[in-house]
Amino acid sequence: MIGRYEVPEIQALWSEESKFRTWLEVELAVCGVWKERGVIPTHAYEDIRARASFDIRRIDEIEQEVQHDMIAFVSSVAETVGENGRYIHLGLTSSDVIDTASSLTLKRSLAVVDGKVALLMKAVGKKAHEFRHVPCTGRTHGVHAEPTTFGLKLLNWHYQLSRDRERLSLATEQIGYGKISGAVGTYAHCEPSIERRVCELLGLKPALVSTQILQRDRHGNVMNTLALLGGALERFATEIRHLQRTEVMEALEPFGSRQKGSSAMPHKRNPILCERICGMSRLLRGYALTAMENMALWHERDISHSSAERVIWPDAFHVAVYMLNKMIYIVENMQVNTEKMKENLEITRGLVYSQRILLDLVERFGLSREEAYAIVQENAMACWKGQKPFSELLMEDERVRSRISSEELAELFEPEYYLRWADEIFSRFSLDLDTK
Amino acid sequence: MIGRYEVPEIQALWSEESKFRTWLEVELAVCGVWKERGVIPTHAYEDIRARASFDIRRIDEIEQEVQHDMIAFVSSVAETVGENGRYIHLGLTSSDVIDTASSLTLKRSLAVVDGKVALLMKAVGKKAHEFRHVPCTGRTHGVHAEPTTFGLKLLNWHYQLSRDRERLSLATEQIGYGKISGAVGTYAHCEPSIERRVCELLGLKPALVSTQILQRDRHGNVMNTLALLGGALERFATEIRHLQRTEVMEALEPFGSRQKGSSAMPHKRNPILCERICGMSRLLRGYALTAMENMALWHERDISHSSAERVIWPDAFHVAVYMLNKMIYIVENMQVNTEKMKENLEITRGLVYSQRILLDLVERFGLSREEAYAIVQENAMACWKGQKPFSELLMEDERVRSRISSEELAELFEPEYYLRWADEIFSRFSLDLDTK
Amino acid sequence: MIGRYEVPEIQALWSEESKFRTWLEVELAVCGVWKERGVIPTHAYEDIRARASFDIRRIDEIEQEVQHDMIAFVSSVAETVGENGRYIHLGLTSSDVIDTASSLTLKRSLAVVDGKVALLMKAVGKKAHEFRHVPCTGRTHGVHAEPTTFGLKLLNWHYQLSRDRERLSLATEQIGYGKISGAVGTYAHCEPSIERRVCELLGLKPALVSTQILQRDRHGNVMNTLALLGGALERFATEIRHLQRTEVMEALEPFGSRQKGSSAMPHKRNPILCERICGMSRLLRGYALTAMENMALWHERDISHSSAERVIWPDAFHVAVYMLNKMIYIVENMQVNTEKMKENLEITRGLVYSQRILLDLVERFGLSREEAYAIVQENAMACWKGQKPFSELLMEDERVRSRISSEELAELFEPEYYLRWADEIFSRFSLDLDTK
Amino acid sequence: MIGRYEVPEIQALWSEESKFRTWLEVELAVCGVWKERGVIPTHAYEDIRARASFDIRRIDEIEQEVQHDMIAFVSSVAETVGENGRYIHLGLTSSDVIDTASSLTLKRSLAVVDGKVALLMKAVGKKAHEFRHVPCTGRTHGVHAEPTTFGLKLLNWHYQLSRDRERLSLATEQIGYGKISGAVGTYAHCEPSIERRVCELLGLKPALVSTQILQRDRHGNVMNTLALLGGALERFATEIRHLQRTEVMEALEPFGSRQKGSSAMPHKRNPILCERICGMSRLLRGYALTAMENMALWHERDISHSSAERVIWPDAFHVAVYMLNKMIYIVENMQVNTEKMKENLEITRGLVYSQRILLDLVERFGLSREEAYAIVQENAMACWKGQKPFSELLMEDERVRSRISSEELAELFEPEYYLRWADEIFSRFSLDLDTK
Repeated sequence: MIGRYEVPEIQALWSEESKFRTWLEVELAVCGVWKERGVIPTHAYEDIRARASFDIRRIDEIEQEVQHDMIAFVSSVAETVGENGRYIHLGLTSSDVIDTASSLTLKRSLAVVDGKVALLMKAVGKKAHEFRHVPCTGRTHGVHAEPTTFGLKLLNWHYQLSRDRERLSLATEQIGYGKISGAVGTYAHCEPSIERRVCELLGLKPALVSTQILQRDRHGNVMNTLALLGGALERFATEIRHLQRTEVMEALEPFGSRQKGSSAMPHKRNPILCERICGMSRLLRGYALTAMENMALWHERDISHSSAERVIWPDAFHVAVYMLNKMIYIVENMQVNTEKMKENLEITRGLVYSQRILLDLVERFGLSREEAYAIVQENAMACWKGQKPFSELLMEDERVRSRISSEELAELFEPEYYLRWADEIFSRFSLDLDTK
Repeated sequence: MIGRYEVPEIQALWSEESKFRTWLEVELAVCGVWKERGVIPTHAYEDIRARASFDIRRIDEIEQEVQHDMIAFVSSVAETVGENGRYIHLGLTSSDVIDTASSLTLKRSLAVVDGKVALLMKAVGKKAHEFRHVPCTGRTHGVHAEPTTFGLKLLNWHYQLSRDRERLSLATEQIGYGKISGAVGTYAHCEPSIERRVCELLGLKPALVSTQILQRDRHGNVMNTLALLGGALERFATEIRHLQRTEVMEALEPFGSRQKGSSAMPHKRNPILCERICGMSRLLRGYALTAMENMALWHERDISHSSAERVIWPDAFHVAVYMLNKMIYIVENMQVNTEKMKENLEITRGLVYSQRILLDLVERFGLSREEAYAIVQENAMACWKGQKPFSELLMEDERVRSRISSEELAELFEPEYYLRWADEIFSRFSLDLDTK
Repeated sequence: MIGRYEVPEIQALWSEESKFRTWLEVELAVCGVWKERGVIPTHAYEDIRARASFDIRRIDEIEQEVQHDMIAFVSSVAETVGENGRYIHLGLTSSDVIDTASSLTLKRSLAVVDGKVALLMKAVGKKAHEFRHVPCTGRTHGVHAEPTTFGLKLLNWHYQLSRDRERLSLATEQIGYGKISGAVGTYAHCEPSIERRVCELLGLKPALVSTQILQRDRHGNVMNTLALLGGALERFATEIRHLQRTEVMEALEPFGSRQKGSSAMPHKRNPILCERICGMSRLLRGYALTAMENMALWHERDISHSSAERVIWPDAFHVAVYMLNKMIYIVENMQVNTEKMKENLEITRGLVYSQRILLDLVERFGLSREEAYAIVQENAMACWKGQKPFSELLMEDERVRSRISSEELAELFEPEYYLRWADEIFSRFSLDLDTK
Repeated sequence: MIGRYEVPEIQALWSEESKFRTWLEVELAVCGVWKERGVIPTHAYEDIRARASFDIRRIDEIEQEVQHDMIAFVSSVAETVGENGRYIHLGLTSSDVIDTASSLTLKRSLAVVDGKVALLMKAVGKKAHEFRHVPCTGRTHGVHAEPTTFGLKLLNWHYQLSRDRERLSLATEQIGYGKISGAVGTYAHCEPSIERRVCELLGLKPALVSTQILQRDRHGNVMNTLALLGGALERFATEIRHLQRTEVMEALEPFGSRQKGSSAMPHKRNPILCERICGMSRLLRGYALTAMENMALWHERDISHSSAERVIWPDAFHVAVYMLNKMIYIVENMQVNTEKMKENLEITRGLVYSQRILLDLVERFGLSREEAYAIVQENAMACWKGQKPFSELLMEDERVRSRISSEELAELFEPEYYLRWADEIFSRFSLDLDTK
């Protein structure tokens, strides 16, 4: 990932340095189990633990020659250990180490993501609570529909994120597996009990059956889960972009006091973070696609997945966490214009209340739905075109005036009616409202 | 979906007829709850239940005019009921019905898929058991690696399918929600208890918060889950395609006694079903992509998702179930050439045992890994190029002959060694071996 | 494709009926060339031409048995011809017919698409011309930027469509190839001159080299070209959706006089056609992806592409032409509110002119860009927040007032200045302004 | 892109350093035109040319504050110039510079790709020529079909690459456009003649109409073109992977003399480069998808495309050129086993000649196609199952023996017959056979 979008927590898990550190973690766990089994003498094992390390430049040097990164790594580590180095990688095939280590790193990366989603849920929940009674326009098709509250918009985000966490949980479960089953999964040179114990030491479960590798549906699901999460963040960011439109101006993403919106137009204040999040969600979908194409490998494995995974795994986690960080920042610091929300509720001059009139005509006066619909639509269209408020037009329509008094009508135009269930909806969630 | 790939179980759920039937199911459940609440008189409700039906041509006729499918549907149903028809759709917005009905249909479709996966697992498990001890070549990178058993290959498929079922289970859980919360999710004209009770009647859970619609991460996850399942089937089909290659011929998909493989070449027997499955998995990935792009809708909904969903939902389920049907047929009827498997194990003249020699030199004789590797690789490369068997070459190499006797070497070349853990691996699974 | 989105011109090219008709067209062309070569006697050829036809039910019947659609087709046709039927398919392999016929159908489908794009360009060009001087707000990031004209917006669409036509032209060129080169492309049973002449008769070029099939980059490019065209239509539709937002209301897609926007809210007038186009562009991207995965076939062909192509080729063309039809209708009939465009230009109370002030301070008064930017941004931010117009705030700022007179300032706030190059831009295009 | 897959030619075009260098190239071209117009005094212009440079750390510092990369860049450059720095970026909006510079970089990157494709075509052409008469098995569905030549396989690659060059040519033409038309494309502060002259100086064409940016179909097409090229390379790599299978062994990718194929199995020689190319083509498809989603921007631009483009543009070019480099290396150095090709032609014991028998029975003896097919298929299936060669079985079949003599049959089993058009096919291409 380009420096601009790298995230330290992910960098710490996915750097070359970290990759080799995790490989060593697996190799040492295996040595530990061989020691438990009496295959590696205790003093040799202690020697290994004390001295085993690696040097990336040396690994590169050897890889240049042998064209095989794991062999280069093992040789380099063995060099640092000296004679007992020959115990390293005992009975293993490269993928035993690589795939088990990848599971560790993916699992740890998912934990970072999940932690950030939890933080975002908290931030969203607090804002949702804060604005739970603030009326604003509900829009469908970009067109004013009926009143809702800004808090309900946000609560919906909170709910969606909880589903992302469910999916993250399954993805984490399915990726939390190691394999030390050899070249084609038969344990030919390393019996099953080694795999069991190594996985236990590493906090993983042993795959019940494997080939040279763990099957790639596990990994594909991880990438898909990130892409779905990206789609959630894209939805939230799109909402803010809409609300920040000049004509709407109900909410704005934070804007630094010294920030400049445009090199040419000093008045500009643009939702660039939200736009960035939208663009990045497209990256995550692209990565998911690549990951899904990685599943149908040949026989007991081919290595075509590897080049793609070296790129998309770190890239996807960098992008996902970067997006989460930005979204947390945005939610915590966005500017909400509750006054503008009220104003915008009025710009249709009452049209957003059309359904209540329709239902009143049907329910209280027994008009057929079609009949009532025609009356209300007719006046609504006149209102869209003309200059008069909807209620005025209705009062001029004999079919309405003869049934509904102007006092009754005024009542039908009250936004509070639409918000009466907000508290009940909120009561279904236990939001974490602690200050930090 | 084109007729060729349509599946009756899915057609039954996704036909126009069925769509309207499910809408009616929801509308009637709502009427039932209004009756419980005393809003619809019992006799009117009974009248509705007795008479409510629909006529697709009439719906089309009305839609032509109003350009709105739900309005057309409700009008048509109301016509069949007569006066009490006005109670239908009471307090509802179109999406209350459409999205709740979609959840029902998606849930039912997932149940069909899951049932088929269960059948496939059973078929695969039985074949795995049957061939659990049959040795065959394990291949990595398309190159012979070490012996494994054909049963272990199949057991790996069984295991992967069990993860698909886990994912299907979560997808089913997350899609099993209804919403009767009105135009923007505020229950403005239909209080929350209605939604609760309607969902209960329909076997769904009520969404804790919604907009005009249920959020599309639920649906995106369904499509992703099918795409991952497609990737599994593609992997299995690719395996068979490889095994059916003329040079390999270890397993072949079924071939009808009157089937013709090619219009021009009468000798051809091609794995066309497996190829078809591979092509279809590409369709599922395309549909998943479309579904993921459907998530970031505007505000309380825009309807851009709808045109795509009308196409990809039925198409994806047809394709997935079609693939499953074919794969079940293939697994149950494939021709397995265990003789050819044995022959192929020999074609490298012993190279597949190279790791054992390597390890023997390291473990029994204390050679460094590098040293032993060099000895074995040197002889292996000579074997690839020349005409002599690997064991012969090794016995001619002073560095080996001086250490390993020819009897010992013969033992290192025994395939049984590689299969000694097969039973233990199988013991981790409880396969359903019932005959049907 | 579902009936709802089927288009007659495409249906005419892609029905089962039409598929077989095109196969027959190729078979007959081959027979014709064999007749020219003297291989088929003239009377036999004439007999074939007179009698050859097919019966879909009969084809299905045979296919049920032989599991091969081309063999079933040839047998069925041969039956209709009688004895001379044995000349049909002479020296051919199935793919000679199928792939050559597919090229014909794809080429014809591309011609339909190109014709529709031309119609759309004409419609767009006329509207662009009509509104070429109508000022409206140019928006970047959804935020008001500077004035432009509505005609320029549309002219930009026209220009993009001309690039789509360039791409369609290349896609058409590359797909316009046939192959009659046999089972693996060696002309083993049908010499090259046959291919040359058959292609000539069919209006195709002969592939310079082929395998059993034409390579799938040709077809992949067709699908990508449609996806890019879909992206264009999505862009235009997105523009209208934005302009139809209740807060903006500058342009609206057509709304039938008896149309209903919502079952619940009679006041709704929603851009549903534009939303539908957006959703459909997601379908086209999914199909393009599938097509790109179809390229890397095995050796001289595997048939995995076929199942996918049966679905995505007709589906993509139906969707593309459907979208084009709707977009032509929308452009020709959309409602443009030029008054509202003027009003909206004012809602920032002058902020859209900020760059002119900036440049005036730099150019006439020699302020550094940074200094001038700071002055203008400061007042712009005050304007966003407060109640005063931008010009008023500037006149209260000593740094401006000391330099720019209020008359000069008024001039800097004139929208006409921004539109002075519109005619020059239009002069670069030769729009077809004929009435129909 | 991760270091492992970075390519120097692309790095030189896409580094941060290079990005700013290209921006400066555009800014200086604009200054040059202002000088020609007399707006910038000659001495000031010369001062700018002499002193303008940038310091990435300083740019980062400023960007930290203003959150706008172009403003940071311009400020930094202005600082290096001193007083005349104020002329830099005169009348420009950021995207005038960024998009025009991006076109330059994309065009230059496409030239690198095209040059590599030309090199690959040369390498492929030479090998095709070398092996133009070497018989090998043509395979369809992975099953032996009929003889072809290895040269024809390669010539087919050459042909496909020529289509890639056609597509690259169009992509290059469509991306070779600049725009200096201001914030919304109206030339408000920088008249059209400036754009025309700046583009001329930079070797670009001026966009006939633009918004703040160039429309993203141009860029989407570039990414799609790379993805299609990737699909070509994937096809070639897949072919070699198949040919390198242990059972086939007809061609192998190069293997270094000190290379190690597996850490565990010293005998392994794997097609890892070809597998890597396959994996990378999946990356290119993912990037293409992201690029296509970047097209439908809001109004006169939103910046959502930018984050994605920063990642996918360099990544896609790195990957594409990396793949091309590897493929050139593979083609030039692959090991071709012509002996093994001959051997493999025999393994079906004559089945690959089945079509000739079929045609002989039809053409010489007037059997109906169905009848002849049945005879040949029957014997072919017996041959697949049993131990006898195909010709022997045919000679034992009365229906054949009564018509075809054993001498005639022997002739029908000659591979040369299948290769007789190879030279004619080659004559359609003018291959560059120069040694280097």
